[in-house]
Amino acid sequence: MPQAQDPVRVALIGSGRMGAFHGETLARRLPGAELAAVADPAPGAAERLASTLGAPKFFTDAAEAFADPEIDAVVIAAPARFHAGLVVSAAAAGKGVFCEKPMAVTLADADRAIDAAHAAGVVLQVGFNRRFAADWAAARALLDDGRLGTPRLLRSVTRDPGGFDPARVAPNTIFLETLIHDFDALRFLNPGASAVEVFATANALVEPEWRDRGLLDTAVVLVRFDNGAVGTAEACFEASYGYDVRGEVFGSGGMATMGDGRRTGMVFSGKPGRLAETVRSDQELLSAAYVAELATFVGAVRDGTPAPVGGEDARSALEIALAAAQSVESGRPVLIDELAK
Amino acid sequence: MPQAQDPVRVALIGSGRMGAFHGETLARRLPGAELAAVADPAPGAAERLASTLGAPKFFTDAAEAFADPEIDAVVIAAPARFHAGLVVSAAAAGKGVFCEKPMAVTLADADRAIDAAHAAGVVLQVGFNRRFAADWAAARALLDDGRLGTPRLLRSVTRDPGGFDPARVAPNTIFLETLIHDFDALRFLNPGASAVEVFATANALVEPEWRDRGLLDTAVVLVRFDNGAVGTAEACFEASYGYDVRGEVFGSGGMATMGDGRRTGMVFSGKPGRLAETVRSDQELLSAAYVAELATFVGAVRDGTPAPVGGEDARSALEIALAAAQSVESGRPVLIDELAK
Amino acid sequence: MPQAQDPVRVALIGSGRMGAFHGETLARRLPGAELAAVADPAPGAAERLASTLGAPKFFTDAAEAFADPEIDAVVIAAPARFHAGLVVSAAAAGKGVFCEKPMAVTLADADRAIDAAHAAGVVLQVGFNRRFAADWAAARALLDDGRLGTPRLLRSVTRDPGGFDPARVAPNTIFLETLIHDFDALRFLNPGASAVEVFATANALVEPEWRDRGLLDTAVVLVRFDNGAVGTAEACFEASYGYDVRGEVFGSGGMATMGDGRRTGMVFSGKPGRLAETVRSDQELLSAAYVAELATFVGAVRDGTPAPVGGEDARSALEIALAAAQSVESGRPVLIDELAK
Amino acid sequence: MPQAQDPVRVALIGSGRMGAFHGETLARRLPGAELAAVADPAPGAAERLASTLGAPKFFTDAAEAFADPEIDAVVIAAPARFHAGLVVSAAAAGKGVFCEKPMAVTLADADRAIDAAHAAGVVLQVGFNRRFAADWAAARALLDDGRLGTPRLLRSVTRDPGGFDPARVAPNTIFLETLIHDFDALRFLNPGASAVEVFATANALVEPEWRDRGLLDTAVVLVRFDNGAVGTAEACFEASYGYDVRGEVFGSGGMATMGDGRRTGMVFSGKPGRLAETVRSDQELLSAAYVAELATFVGAVRDGTPAPVGGEDARSALEIALAAAQSVESGRPVLIDELAK
Repeated sequence: MPQAQDPVRVALIGSGRMGAFHGETLARRLPGAELAAVADPAPGAAERLASTLGAPKFFTDAAEAFADPEIDAVVIAAPARFHAGLVVSAAAAGKGVFCEKPMAVTLADADRAIDAAHAAGVVLQVGFNRRFAADWAAARALLDDGRLGTPRLLRSVTRDPGGFDPARVAPNTIFLETLIHDFDALRFLNPGASAVEVFATANALVEPEWRDRGLLDTAVVLVRFDNGAVGTAEACFEASYGYDVRGEVFGSGGMATMGDGRRTGMVFSGKPGRLAETVRSDQELLSAAYVAELATFVGAVRDGTPAPVGGEDARSALEIALAAAQSVESGRPVLIDELAK
Repeated sequence: MPQAQDPVRVALIGSGRMGAFHGETLARRLPGAELAAVADPAPGAAERLASTLGAPKFFTDAAEAFADPEIDAVVIAAPARFHAGLVVSAAAAGKGVFCEKPMAVTLADADRAIDAAHAAGVVLQVGFNRRFAADWAAARALLDDGRLGTPRLLRSVTRDPGGFDPARVAPNTIFLETLIHDFDALRFLNPGASAVEVFATANALVEPEWRDRGLLDTAVVLVRFDNGAVGTAEACFEASYGYDVRGEVFGSGGMATMGDGRRTGMVFSGKPGRLAETVRSDQELLSAAYVAELATFVGAVRDGTPAPVGGEDARSALEIALAAAQSVESGRPVLIDELAK
Repeated sequence: MPQAQDPVRVALIGSGRMGAFHGETLARRLPGAELAAVADPAPGAAERLASTLGAPKFFTDAAEAFADPEIDAVVIAAPARFHAGLVVSAAAAGKGVFCEKPMAVTLADADRAIDAAHAAGVVLQVGFNRRFAADWAAARALLDDGRLGTPRLLRSVTRDPGGFDPARVAPNTIFLETLIHDFDALRFLNPGASAVEVFATANALVEPEWRDRGLLDTAVVLVRFDNGAVGTAEACFEASYGYDVRGEVFGSGGMATMGDGRRTGMVFSGKPGRLAETVRSDQELLSAAYVAELATFVGAVRDGTPAPVGGEDARSALEIALAAAQSVESGRPVLIDELAK
Repeated sequence: MPQAQDPVRVALIGSGRMGAFHGETLARRLPGAELAAVADPAPGAAERLASTLGAPKFFTDAAEAFADPEIDAVVIAAPARFHAGLVVSAAAAGKGVFCEKPMAVTLADADRAIDAAHAAGVVLQVGFNRRFAADWAAARALLDDGRLGTPRLLRSVTRDPGGFDPARVAPNTIFLETLIHDFDALRFLNPGASAVEVFATANALVEPEWRDRGLLDTAVVLVRFDNGAVGTAEACFEASYGYDVRGEVFGSGGMATMGDGRRTGMVFSGKPGRLAETVRSDQELLSAAYVAELATFVGAVRDGTPAPVGGEDARSALEIALAAAQSVESGRPVLIDELAK
């Protein structure tokens, strides 16, 4: 464990779009952290990002980062299918682990990751950024102080700004990588409740000619919880107006709505009417949340405090995602208990 | 047919809460109409309302209104289970018919009503008021002019202000009388598409102790349309903040959101923050829409023009409602084609 | 005085843009009123409007309306310079009087009108429609119930949608006919206080080439009240986004903002961002207020109750308008007490 | 000049409320800067803040910071009356200078500061944070790209959350320290125009019993610019709902409104209606702007680029403030050209 006054030395695993953002946060936006290394198997990629951000080390093999005694913790932003394995290795090496969502894409892998962190006694935090976004945190505060009462109906929406390549969308991406955020958001805003049953419908509406090849770019998922509340999660890979992340919790005490979507508070009244520009990307909308989640993680590593959103949360969201995929396949509602464990 | 310059003479059938509102509209808010009679079987009820509103005639039997040659048209606001029979009788008597929703609670009855109006060649309009509300009409205009593109995801919400008596809620009221509005709203905002499949989940969350007696006070319904669009309709019989009717259409061109919910545009910034009062009842929120639908009806009767929302629309919304009820019962998605015709 | 059950028979004096709107309200939107006659000196104008609205009588001389014993009340919507004289004549004939703003353009005329109504014991109501607009009424309610506390700073804005003919703008129109609404709004929202001093600056910014001919199309007026509160009124004859009427009251208890400006609650999120259409005319924005003020007037005439906004209010707003004009001329603040009485 | 890769070493002059915030930004939020020293004459104050923030040096005399060759630049956050002298000394020592507003409280001092920076060839930036706030920058962008057209009417509002001690409010604080922001905002949003005339009215409305001792806690200032546009600036030292900073630019092309005031985008609909919490302090509302202005300053020092808001801007805003104070004293509008230079 590093001393309170020393920065936490973090290795970044993966230097893609999110990796670069997290790397910059570690290098420049978090005084308590130090970007100590970058690892990426693509030739030259780790070196380039390390150089840009002033990180002293770079590796093509994440194992080198795990083996490095000067590394306190890792931030995993590799492709989703590698996440669980990387968590297991990093934990085994005694590193604190922040893992981008999804932490795993099978329940067995999720369990392996959770067990590894537990066995090693290291922090394991998962990148459910919405919990760190101001609107969502404020809604949760209304639940915690009782003003919203008992949740009855919830909603969580993710719409991406488009521009994706249908050929590169892995099966069930919409559930495992996009809606996983919404499943966690529903859970976050229905505290203490567990998902019981899931019904989903999905389709290729943005790129209909890819429907036959199995593309799902638009989906709606109903999640029934054991307290009777019902959550609706919906996603689409393309919104003409940018990046749209919103939520709603309706309880016995009232309703909280989250997700303003406006770029700034400036409104332009012109010939067509009143116009407010909308945000265009996750990094624009959620930049403060991305920083906050890493700040929390770094604090947990430094102080040995538990991460506020960990492996069990990742597993619970994954259950909903897997049930949703299975529901689309079968055309039937799926009980969480039906899932092959 | 009355002369263009003569007011349309309308008999009101039913003098309850909505009947009284419609009666007042006919008597006082619509220059082209005249409230000619009120009919209600409850002793004294028709007479009382007729006297209040200055209607010259009152009946305890609606048949008297249908038989009266001085009546041009009827507005049916009796309990839902009588609607279809009243439509059939009124149409058979050659009266133009405006019927509150639901026009019928079985498909057979819906067909009887449609056939009767068709056979008699009379106007048949159904009380789907949301089509006449400014926000919804504006959203539809965005669809009609192409700006919203092709609908992908739709949402329609109804939350009542509460205060209902669980003992008096007939089975499936939430689908047949509340969400029927939302089912029509989804259809209105996905023009030309037909519902294919319905999945619903419902519960007693406002009055949980009535759950065992079959109360459903909270429901979410997914409707899959033949153009791939998916609509979500949700309802709850109690919202602490008043009467909440909202909608959303997300299409390839963008998104329209409807349902402001604010009582006025005045915002009070005080110690707790910025506060906008919310509307408290359907008649407050939708008063202009209620007047507009009757104005349209009266115009259709006078000019012999078709009603913009008729018996077939009522039947299509009813199909979704019946499928939703069946889905809750069976725990499975229900195809519209499965419904007993 | 008419019987409670009889409609109030109203003659419309002036058949221009506002006259036609008021005429339609009297004929079609107010069950308690009857448009009994239209008077307009322009050849054929009164006859045309009377025919359109089904008014039984029309006159080219308002005096005929005043002399007609079948007329209970008049609505004066003639050009501003004739208002005071018409009020005096109508009152002398014992008619209830509703007069469009400004009731008078000199203080002497205002006094004559007030005296005439008082001497005749008739209702005199002035067309300050903003008091009847929901937002403004709600703000006033916050003052009346104490939640806003003592007013400190107030603001009232009027921006017209443009399209005016600079050649036809009489001197000081911006103060006497446009900002007179704002001066009344400031008074309405600072109840019990009196204007003490006025400073104004005005210019031709929409049509700068008319500046030398004395056009004032843009103005800002500071009004200091005897309770220390300061109101700012501003106007411009052209706003690219439509008709913009807003207000703000900031008091010791908080702030009320009025004037939403949106055409409906529907918001379109498209490529440029979130767009809400804006209202385009006074009659669109304030149609309910226009109806409400006449309903109040008709009720006052029928029931003999006092009008809520009368000749003294018109006079007080006129004082501010005259002081503003004088301030622009002199380049100095002007005390209300300085005004030639 | 430091190397591009070295952080700019900054000394903080003044460790009060704003000083501490700027110090934290330099130490923790700006990777390109280093908090190298803190200076404060109060015994122990500099040492305490330096220790908290990890700054290696602390001084009780700012001159020591100016003399230190390891300091590249200074951030002046001392009491206003010392600003100009500190700017002169720091510039003479060759340091880049960021000075909190007001840079000076007399025109002579403003000129001395400007001359000193010019003579030394150092960066001089003034703390007009609103230019760095997203809403204001977005409005300026609308001006720069022509969409707003030519400004006609502007408004700038500052309301503090209250809790001030009337005994410690220096004369004309409301103009020199509060509204100075608004005067700069008006200038920023009317680019290229110069203030010509100022009329102001001010009073003690929050603490009326201090009126006789000269307290001014509420003020409205009209500023006429040489392009005909008129700006209204208003301030009050107490708003029950928090810290309220807003603006409006109305031009020939439309209107921009700035200043949302909401703490987050979360809205709670509860019994009283829809509630959005409001921000409670300048540091909450403007934290991103405070960071952005120092980032810009540090970049200017590092790269030798000019500061976007400098001594001349401070002087121009001061002219308006002094004219406003003089206007209140004389009860008359004051020409900028009348000011004793």
